[in-house]
Order: sequence, then C-alpha cells, then structure tokens
Amino acid sequence: MFGVTILGNNSAVPAYNRHPTAQIVTIEDQLILLDCGEGTQMQIAKFKIRWSRIKYIFISHLHGDHYFGLIGLITSMCLMGREDDLNIYGPAVLEQIIKIQLEAADTNMSFKINFNPLTKEGLIVDEMKFTVETFSTQHRIECHGFIIKEKKKARKINKETIHQYHIPTYFFEKLKDGEDYITKEGLLIKNEWVTLPNTLGRSYAFSGDTLYDERIAELVKGVQILYHETTYLKNMTENAFKRFHSTTHQAASIALKAQVGKLLIGHFSSKYESLNVFLEEAREVFENTHLALEGVTYRLLSK
Amino acid sequence: MFGVTILGNNSAVPAYNRHPTAQIVTIEDQLILLDCGEGTQMQIAKFKIRWSRIKYIFISHLHGDHYFGLIGLITSMCLMGREDDLNIYGPAVLEQIIKIQLEAADTNMSFKINFNPLTKEGLIVDEMKFTVETFSTQHRIECHGFIIKEKKKARKINKETIHQYHIPTYFFEKLKDGEDYITKEGLLIKNEWVTLPNTLGRSYAFSGDTLYDERIAELVKGVQILYHETTYLKNMTENAFKRFHSTTHQAASIALKAQVGKLLIGHFSSKYESLNVFLEEAREVFENTHLALEGVTYRLLSK
Repeated sequence: MFGVTILGNNSAVPAYNRHPTAQIVTIEDQLILLDCGEGTQMQIAKFKIRWSRIKYIFISHLHGDHYFGLIGLITSMCLMGREDDLNIYGPAVLEQIIKIQLEAADTNMSFKINFNPLTKEGLIVDEMKFTVETFSTQHRIECHGFIIKEKKKARKINKETIHQYHIPTYFFEKLKDGEDYITKEGLLIKNEWVTLPNTLGRSYAFSGDTLYDERIAELVKGVQILYHETTYLKNMTENAFKRFHSTTHQAASIALKAQVGKLLIGHFSSKYESLNVFLEEAREVFENTHLALEGVTYRLLSK
Repeated sequence: MFGVTILGNNSAVPAYNRHPTAQIVTIEDQLILLDCGEGTQMQIAKFKIRWSRIKYIFISHLHGDHYFGLIGLITSMCLMGREDDLNIYGPAVLEQIIKIQLEAADTNMSFKINFNPLTKEGLIVDEMKFTVETFSTQHRIECHGFIIKEKKKARKINKETIHQYHIPTYFFEKLKDGEDYITKEGLLIKNEWVTLPNTLGRSYAFSGDTLYDERIAELVKGVQILYHETTYLKNMTENAFKRFHSTTHQAASIALKAQVGKLLIGHFSSKYESLNVFLEEAREVFENTHLALEGVTYRLLSK
C-alpha cells in the first residue's frame, strides 16, 4: 500500500471542524508524517493511525498551523513507551523549540530523536523502499516541500521464456537486477530475453506553503499525486501573492505544467465554509483534481 | 455571573474524547483561562467562549497537557487581530518558550503580552472585582495552584430605614463603603442604621497537579468550589504518590478538611474509560463532589 491520509486540510485558525495541516503517507508498513498542526495526535487517534509506525516526520515550516502539534505528539509517544528512533526533518531552529519544551517538562525520553535540519535541496532519505527529496518554496518564512518516491522496482522474471534457458535459480536475483547470464559453455543469455521491466515507482509530492512558482512544476514533474496548497479562490490572486499563498487556478496550473496524475488541494482559508468552489475552479484548469478531505486515504496505484 | 467552564478534564494523553486541562473562569464580563492543553483553542470555539474577553491566562506547570495549546491560542488571537493586552502567568521559562516560537514564525504581534513569572506565593492579581492568589504544589516539576476571589461587596442601602433620615443621594456611595453620615445639625447617623451587609465574595480554587498535601486544605479553606485533581482511583495511592498525583479519596479529604462548598474533580488518567467510580469514591468522603465535565459551567452562587 502506498497512500496518503489527510489529517488536516485547513490553514491558520481551525474552522468548520477542519484541522491544521497534517498528512500520513503510508508505504507498506512504514508511516511518514508530513507537517503536524495542533491536534494532530487527536486526529491520529480518531483515524486509528498506528503511530508507533511513524518513523519519519517532515515539517515544512514553522508557522504554527504546520507544527504546533509536534511537541504533544512526541510527548505522547514517550508516555506510551515508544522505543524506536524518530527521525525529524525541519528548519534548524525547530530542534531548540523541541529541546526547551522537553527540558521544561523534565521529560524522560523513552526513545531517541534524530533531528535533521533542512539546509539544502535534494535527497534527504534513502530507504530500502523509497526516497525523500526536499525543495525550497517561496513563503513568508523558510519553507520546504517534499517528494516521496517509491524506488523503481527490479525487473520481473519472464515466466514464458525463462524455461527455454538453463539458468540456475540462485542467479534469478541477479537477473532481476538486470544482469546478463553466461552459460558454462560461454553462451551469452541477454537479460531482456528472460525478464520483463517492472512497474515504475510511484511518487507523491507535497508542496508546503508557497506562492505560485513554476519552478515547482519542474521539480515535481510527472509525480502520480501532487498535493498543492490552495489557500484562496481565484479572485484572490493579489491577496494570495501578498501572503505567499496560492489560488485554485495557480495550483491547477502547476499540476498541468508538471503533468501529474492527480492533484490534491488543501490548506483552505478559514474564511471559506464550503469547499465545492475550490474543486470547481481547480477543475477548470486541471480535470483530475480532488479535495484533500480529512480522514480520506488517497491511494497511489501502480501503473 | 461567576462560574467555571471545563474545556478539558483529562490528564496526559487525550483519550475517550476527553481533552487535556483547560478551564475558563467567568467573572461578569471578564474571562480567565486556567491552563491551556493542546486543542484548547478548538474547545474554546466549540463551546462558544468569547476569547477576545480572555484577559488573564494562568499556567500551573510545564507538563504538556497543561500548556501545549497556549502558543496556538496566542497565534490565533493575533490572526484575529486582538488588540488588548494579554496577561500570562506561569513558570519563568514559559516566556522563552513563547518567544522562540513567535520569532520562528516571524509573527506580527497585534497585541502586547505581559508575562509574569510565578516566583512566590500570594496575591498576583488585584482587579476591581476580584483577586487572584497563587500557591505552590508538590509535583514532579514546579507547579502552582490558584485561588480566584470575588472582592467582598460593598454594603447595601437598607430600603426600609433609609427614608427615615434625610441623607442626600450623593452620599449613598460612601454609605455603601461603610461611612457614617453627619447631618448639617451635627447629628450622627450610624452606617448600620441605614445599610445592610452584602453577601460575602465568592471564591474558586484550582489545585494544579499535586500529590496529597494537607497544606492545600489550609490555603483553600472555605472556598465555594474547589477543583482538585484526581488522576487515580483510591486503590492507586502508591502510584499516585510516585507520580506526584492524587486519588479520589485524597482530593475529597482535602475538600473535607478545607470545608469547601463543593468539590470538582478532574485530570482523569487515560487508563479509565468510565468516570462514575471517581464520583462514587470521592463521595464516600465528601458528599458534594461533582465530576468536572467538558462543556459544563459550574456556577458560584452568592450566599
């Protein structure tokens, strides 16, 4: 399973029972938390997320609606006796913010936090099954987006052709890695005769908060699902620019330029009660747009 | 109106839709917030508290379930354009915790925060209509309790006797303050002939987190409502002591010794789903005990 579960889709002040930004990305048995607004631990409990499995937390920036729930989540993990390391990535000063609060509470840490300040763009996590890359966005303060890519899978054994050749089974793993086989007699058996290409790795991009920035379209080119913030409707372009946020049309334009599979929109301003207009406007530019709805899991499917 | 509205009655990890500690004390048109666990701003919105009227915030101690919602509340107050000063009282390091987070977000403060570190016991607020006193409790880290006392009201004009004397109405305010009146002819009209004593000031005490401490009974003697934490049931006395918390019987014993009017119990451990046993056990010792239930306002009535 590769999917993203929305825990919060609102910006700034909570409103209409919408919560500040937080998303859980599931890649098989591992969970990644993207941003952690106030109340995220309650949303995690509500939607029955197995929080012991959260191994990575990425914080896009230090506006409260993206991280005020982090210290509570860490503290609750301690109270529940977590032992596994937790890897947190975010702006450098976040480390001090966590430290001063853990010290004030005289918290007995039951696990280790590996804090990694986000200092440059590019690869930040290289796991067996996926990678995470980060990029900078244009916001009022330092802000980061993230791209999570499933690793390109190995080739598959071609069951229709493999029996025509006498290749020992111990060599099958090397075949999957793309190697050719040479028989004892010195005969070359080309890899593509006995294997098939596997599906492409799936990928999810999270925009962070940002004003309209075509550079993002280049960076997230071809991802299956792009989450792009849409704080405002299209008639608020000027306001969005002033506040370093994006509108529906802008988010959808990025999705179109980047030729992504699907666009998820969220980070809705508290001034809007109904979200339908967000969807209608974004679809004027990019048809396969969906609202990031709390509690819903959007799956990334193999091509 | 003098009353206390419970926003959260749970300890540590949120559970069973119970929230961490936060209470709103209303004294006529002024609001006081006692503690501010994570999600307090959502509870304030849910129970339609007029947060622009919150003038004072008191934080008992720096365990997360008592203050992790403070920074979010302050930030939201800014986003909504609050202009009035906000007076915050708490352990000294709280000032730095607030500051580092406001700076990280590059927050444009729309109002001034007057931060007052709690350094000694006694009077900390002296308002027209009420006072606030603080006292130290025995907890794993520095912790404070608070007593809010309505000021003793002025005397009332005795409508049955006032007409027997020719006292000009401009002097009525002085009569209420207890002064005698001397007529132009030099005749003394004693205050008690024309006024009646008013009701005693009402009072509310909030225990903070504490182990069983008989000193608290002395400090809160005779208050109308005492809120005392009861993290555990009576069979957990040893555990309560180890963790610097109180049991049902201990809280009720303090209420009994202090001869308070009513005992409110809260700060329930997340290990308990049902709260009925808390009530039953506390009532074995102190009959007029009530559960501090979220969303309920407990009124302090004039005697």
